[in-house]
Amino acid sequence: MPDMDFYKSLKRKADTKMLLLVADGIGGLPQTPGGKTELETASTPNLDRLAREGICGLLDPVSPGITPGSGPSHLALFGYDPITCNVGRGLLGALGVAFPIQHGDVAARINFCTVDAQGRVTDRRAGRIPTEKNRELIAKMRTVTVQGAEVFLETEKEHRAVVVFRGQDLYDALNDTDPQVTGEKPHDVKAADPKSEKLAKIVREWLGKIAKVLANDHPANMILLRGFARYEKFVTMDELHGITCGAIATYPMYRGVAKLVGMDVIDCGSEPEDEVEALKKSFDTFDFFYVHYKKIDSRGEDGDFAAKVKEIEHFDAIVAPIRQLAWDVIAVTCDHSTPAVLKAHSWHPCPLILWSKYERADGCERFGETECALKGGLGRLPSTALMPLILANAMRLEKFGA
Amino acid sequence: MPDMDFYKSLKRKADTKMLLLVADGIGGLPQTPGGKTELETASTPNLDRLAREGICGLLDPVSPGITPGSGPSHLALFGYDPITCNVGRGLLGALGVAFPIQHGDVAARINFCTVDAQGRVTDRRAGRIPTEKNRELIAKMRTVTVQGAEVFLETEKEHRAVVVFRGQDLYDALNDTDPQVTGEKPHDVKAADPKSEKLAKIVREWLGKIAKVLANDHPANMILLRGFARYEKFVTMDELHGITCGAIATYPMYRGVAKLVGMDVIDCGSEPEDEVEALKKSFDTFDFFYVHYKKIDSRGEDGDFAAKVKEIEHFDAIVAPIRQLAWDVIAVTCDHSTPAVLKAHSWHPCPLILWSKYERADGCERFGETECALKGGLGRLPSTALMPLILANAMRLEKFGA
Repeated sequence: MPDMDFYKSLKRKADTKMLLLVADGIGGLPQTPGGKTELETASTPNLDRLAREGICGLLDPVSPGITPGSGPSHLALFGYDPITCNVGRGLLGALGVAFPIQHGDVAARINFCTVDAQGRVTDRRAGRIPTEKNRELIAKMRTVTVQGAEVFLETEKEHRAVVVFRGQDLYDALNDTDPQVTGEKPHDVKAADPKSEKLAKIVREWLGKIAKVLANDHPANMILLRGFARYEKFVTMDELHGITCGAIATYPMYRGVAKLVGMDVIDCGSEPEDEVEALKKSFDTFDFFYVHYKKIDSRGEDGDFAAKVKEIEHFDAIVAPIRQLAWDVIAVTCDHSTPAVLKAHSWHPCPLILWSKYERADGCERFGETECALKGGLGRLPSTALMPLILANAMRLEKFGA
Repeated sequence: MPDMDFYKSLKRKADTKMLLLVADGIGGLPQTPGGKTELETASTPNLDRLAREGICGLLDPVSPGITPGSGPSHLALFGYDPITCNVGRGLLGALGVAFPIQHGDVAARINFCTVDAQGRVTDRRAGRIPTEKNRELIAKMRTVTVQGAEVFLETEKEHRAVVVFRGQDLYDALNDTDPQVTGEKPHDVKAADPKSEKLAKIVREWLGKIAKVLANDHPANMILLRGFARYEKFVTMDELHGITCGAIATYPMYRGVAKLVGMDVIDCGSEPEDEVEALKKSFDTFDFFYVHYKKIDSRGEDGDFAAKVKEIEHFDAIVAPIRQLAWDVIAVTCDHSTPAVLKAHSWHPCPLILWSKYERADGCERFGETECALKGGLGRLPSTALMPLILANAMRLEKFGA
């Protein structure tokens, strides 16, 4: 894949509208070998029409066989190399709670846990304390200060929270303190490189104070830290491709990833129909829209094949009003597959429709994984190839070379 | 893609004949979505037979979504990384007029233009002066000398010409002087890096003298410079693959690109039938032949779908006599697509036939983009993969590793 400077050099302005519609986890697997996937089982007249009129294919989020988290899988769809641009869990946690992260901040995820009198972990999730209790403890912890860094704390939910360290020269090569098993003490924080020593010292001091503050809050009488990650400013989609981007998503995590690449987040309610309304209202404001549909993935994670089928049909229903807008290019795909039979993200490539008046015909009569694989004219491409294809179809890439 | 040293290490001699037949711009688009492309509309019995007997696929000249110029797209077909080996416009101009370029030369393209009494550009093409006038002015300009470089000048046609600067330590990080709009003065030449300062100074001095020489030649009373490009010797096809290469092309630009990679240019007339004759005559002399067919691309650039179809049928007609020669491997493809509906090069992948007795069967019954995409046994590959496939089928690559 060419590098960012290459794409930057080809930026071209055009008066065209582009849509990337991410049906999170829509790719799936049959319940029994040889059967139909969730998408192939669902009745999807609007997607099928789009597939017939457009060109189809398959996208590999990272590379064949690799199951991605939502961070890398979205970055790949946005055209960023998901391996070199990978962001740590801590950062995704901070973005997920919409924390206003700054260049140089280091974030980590917190799990409240229970420790015994000898400091050994007896429950890595502190009995999944209620979110309300979590907020109470976080408020107490905010009173703790350390030299060398400001510390910000935000509740996620139940036993999970996020910490952000802000200061000069803080780096993130720090191990997790979570021992991953009960009966052991939390690991000490150590730096894996010299430039991370400063933050290691700060975190050790801070954890010592936190242990005292939480001492009487059994079962949540200690915390574990995971996924230290430094935020370094990303090249924005506008810098990279010269496009203004609006993001519509009902979950904070996806708004966070969109912000990471410089998109403007458009306010919307919590239902798919709210997303359509938000899209209509802001249609004139941006060149490119990223719209995220969450619940298909959730039903896949639940392992509920039938419910995932139903959610795909709900998704199909919102495609009709979305198509009424004056698009030049529409791409429909997922960030990763979430087969109900696996109850988890998977490595299977993502079905894709690319709709524009400048693509060739293919053999796809409907939208489905096997149809995309066998009759898709685009073939099998890395997810990072999608943005260049969208931009090309929107007449927004200059010719390379003479 | 493996690097050049990798391929060099696998060179193997064999007594086999290879043909790369480039139907410039043959890839296209339907006139209305879902319809047939130019190639799918044309009657091409000879290509269809070759497609049935060979194996088909699609080639991406640079990467998905990228529209290439003819320089990078040909370099990719010849097996050279089209991004790292990209050559500037000036160099392609010089190669196009068959200038004997040397390592370290810096070339730029010239546009004759009209300037007013204040030096502001009033016509960026000097009213497209006749080529004869261009030659006359170039002859005058050849009398101008500068310290630090030899200057060579060649007419292209109408208002276009080429300049080559030859000297010690000349580098090409210089801006275009073309302001791209009328009403402004030509830009001053500035160096974007320290090592290009020397040439910037030479060019400024030279332009000052040129302005005086042309002062009374209204409308062509000044020149604009674009696309400064330094020539650094390419690894040749012979060094890389141990093959002797003959190039047959009716347009100077393609002969130029072939020379860049060390091919011998075979004399021929201006018609496709002349190319066939030249190929027959030189068949015993080379291992590998690159034959370029131009006019399909020209009709695509014209936006004339029907004329492009007709030109494809003309191309098909010359395939029959070409096949009568004793080839071991034949590849037919284009350097890039040129859909009539876009009147320009495009990003769409190139249809490919690879014919040899050592390839597997696929489902292609005829030569067409959708047929290659859906039934092509080679799938979708970067153009740089073609040369290794040709060489392999010609038994000219050693096994890698034990």
